[in-house]
Amino acid sequence: MTKGPLRVVIVGAGFAGLNAAKALRQEPVHITIVDRRNFHLFQPLLYQVAAAALNPSDIAYPIRSIFRRQENVRSVLLAEVTGINLSDKTLSLDDASVLPYDYLILATGATHSYFGHDDWEEVAPGLKTLEDALLLRQRILAAFEEAERNPDDADRLLTFVVVGGGPTGVELAGALIEIAVHSLGKEFDVIDPTRARVLLVEGAPHVLPVYPEDLSDSARRQLETLGVEVLTGTMVSEIDEGGVTLSDGRRIESGLVLWAAGVQASKLGDILGVETDRTGRVHVEGDMSVPGHREVFVVGDLATVPGVPGVAPAAMQMGRHAGRMIEADLRMRSRFPFHYRNKGALATIGRARAVADFGQVRFGGFLAWVAWLAIHIFYLIGFRNRVLVLISWAWSYLTFRRGARIITGVPRLPEKGEP
Amino acid sequence: MTKGPLRVVIVGAGFAGLNAAKALRQEPVHITIVDRRNFHLFQPLLYQVAAAALNPSDIAYPIRSIFRRQENVRSVLLAEVTGINLSDKTLSLDDASVLPYDYLILATGATHSYFGHDDWEEVAPGLKTLEDALLLRQRILAAFEEAERNPDDADRLLTFVVVGGGPTGVELAGALIEIAVHSLGKEFDVIDPTRARVLLVEGAPHVLPVYPEDLSDSARRQLETLGVEVLTGTMVSEIDEGGVTLSDGRRIESGLVLWAAGVQASKLGDILGVETDRTGRVHVEGDMSVPGHREVFVVGDLATVPGVPGVAPAAMQMGRHAGRMIEADLRMRSRFPFHYRNKGALATIGRARAVADFGQVRFGGFLAWVAWLAIHIFYLIGFRNRVLVLISWAWSYLTFRRGARIITGVPRLPEKGEP
Repeated sequence: MTKGPLRVVIVGAGFAGLNAAKALRQEPVHITIVDRRNFHLFQPLLYQVAAAALNPSDIAYPIRSIFRRQENVRSVLLAEVTGINLSDKTLSLDDASVLPYDYLILATGATHSYFGHDDWEEVAPGLKTLEDALLLRQRILAAFEEAERNPDDADRLLTFVVVGGGPTGVELAGALIEIAVHSLGKEFDVIDPTRARVLLVEGAPHVLPVYPEDLSDSARRQLETLGVEVLTGTMVSEIDEGGVTLSDGRRIESGLVLWAAGVQASKLGDILGVETDRTGRVHVEGDMSVPGHREVFVVGDLATVPGVPGVAPAAMQMGRHAGRMIEADLRMRSRFPFHYRNKGALATIGRARAVADFGQVRFGGFLAWVAWLAIHIFYLIGFRNRVLVLISWAWSYLTFRRGARIITGVPRLPEKGEP
Repeated sequence: MTKGPLRVVIVGAGFAGLNAAKALRQEPVHITIVDRRNFHLFQPLLYQVAAAALNPSDIAYPIRSIFRRQENVRSVLLAEVTGINLSDKTLSLDDASVLPYDYLILATGATHSYFGHDDWEEVAPGLKTLEDALLLRQRILAAFEEAERNPDDADRLLTFVVVGGGPTGVELAGALIEIAVHSLGKEFDVIDPTRARVLLVEGAPHVLPVYPEDLSDSARRQLETLGVEVLTGTMVSEIDEGGVTLSDGRRIESGLVLWAAGVQASKLGDILGVETDRTGRVHVEGDMSVPGHREVFVVGDLATVPGVPGVAPAAMQMGRHAGRMIEADLRMRSRFPFHYRNKGALATIGRARAVADFGQVRFGGFLAWVAWLAIHIFYLIGFRNRVLVLISWAWSYLTFRRGARIITGVPRLPEKGEP
């Protein structure tokens, strides 16, 4: 142990990492936060950026600003972890520097998985980063423009296939049909955007498969009312530039396939060199620490805990728990196991449509959407963001227009070594 | 002449093109607008996107939405003009299609020029497109992050050189020093962002050289009060990755050089095959038409008219004039020459600082800034944009924070043929 304050290093500034740091707010420790990006991303609203309803910075907030007033956050590093030495208690970073820790909290989350079909990524972009969202936005809007210029190919170009019927897939499918019908409906001369088709393909027998069946049915009905074609119990066997082939042999010609299916944990589980499940998530002890290393915690989507879903509230709770375990150590109290509090689940389907599952109380439709709106705005970090997002939504809701409907260049992440 | 309504084709949806289309609002014509992008860009606020104060869609508005209610705008084409056949009265587009016209209005504006040093573009990015602005934002914010990780090199990394002391250069220099001092000042652990240097290099004896001398002096004083080092009567003789060499032989080590100097008209003047000046601008008749072609107008920054500056109000007036000339033809009235009404000039220098030149009345400081703010918000297209921009500014002004302070990937324009 060093003589100064204990050094806590948190890798990843998502919901889990942020909440770990905040839980340690009062403690006499030195916190270092390491992230590849300079911002926290409010991932539940990422699809709204893809759907041209929100701006990137509406849902992204600089990490440095978040901890501006938390004195014990001593350092925020824009870096990638390339190695972890559990016996030396050090991290290697991509600029070849070495970062020592007394406590380590790993919270680098998950990305999408193409189930071994990595070649599909090129033709069926997913939705995990801001760059993904801007790329999707560009492709969605460009599809209508291309159809306008090539009306003979409009049927294919304006058929959108969303693969995966979880919350992201359901939200994207609902948003897509609303863009076509309400936002663009009357603005083209040659094509009729309202004739665009949106298909939602889900392998399980129901959309939102982790929700209770009555809510899954409600979601399906709401989607179909909007005009989405819902194909459950159906897998995708092939994706190429011209469209998708389904498991039943059907071929769907499509101009844009969106991937909202698999999840793969960040590669930090591998770098850690401990036991993971088949999606790369790390098995943890009851207190969220790594077996044999009480000073290393894995939280959020990078950890696998039986019965705990991969949703934002669970990540927040896990992060907070890791912080509390360090607090318990510092105060010579005993650690206690993580207990997940299910605060309910919400998924939106489009303008004024949603499903809500608060255990005993389950409902769909407008009321669920209001609940969804209130909770998401409440959790959005930063006063300004809340106000701006609220105005953006009110405007979209009242006018059916989309404020961020501009096609900009394809964002490309800087290469290593680039500024 | 065709039998149906006259076909008016407008190329470019900047200030000039938009105002040409709007002037024809009541006329029995069929208007086609051709632009490479799907949005109108409010260019005077582009530097605010670069300075992380505004979002891209705050200053960009879909062309289709602008003309949603103007019935005679029959078509909006996302395309690039590759050829103009003045005798056949047709345009060739990049998808090999041919577009006939009865009247043609060319309004494709200008881009930056590196005065023959095109290799400088890589190391000294300019500011003409939204992608430019996002790239600049990324480089500015990344400079501070890089300095935090390499404090030995911080002096160089946190020296910013702005080349060109016109309105864009002055605005950028002011914004840069405010980012460093106010927005980032207290958020870093190793470096002190307030020690960042911003140099403004201008070849003429004064900044804002086209303004009256007392206002140029006021702008210089306001810049120096903020902490900008102003070097007038100084040229840049070399730019490379490590910094710039000045005409007096001085070397300035710099992590980021921003180009705000030369202007070059769009290449459509060349494609037209008529006489242009040395920056590629087309010489026009008094009525803004091309000599020998009464049915072809060139307006905005692509046209050169003695005594008319390359500013947004001038482009609006020229565009409107072209529309009125077509109206005059339709109503069998005679054409009249374009007359520029100088409504004054405004340039901001930073938070609550500006200079204003309304001919008889000239002033600098806070009042000029309020005038600037009011005018820019008034001209921003769309109710929502005005409200959002106002809130963003109020928030930035009161808190010194910047809402759009996120580093996203480098935007890249889609290649030909990409969706």
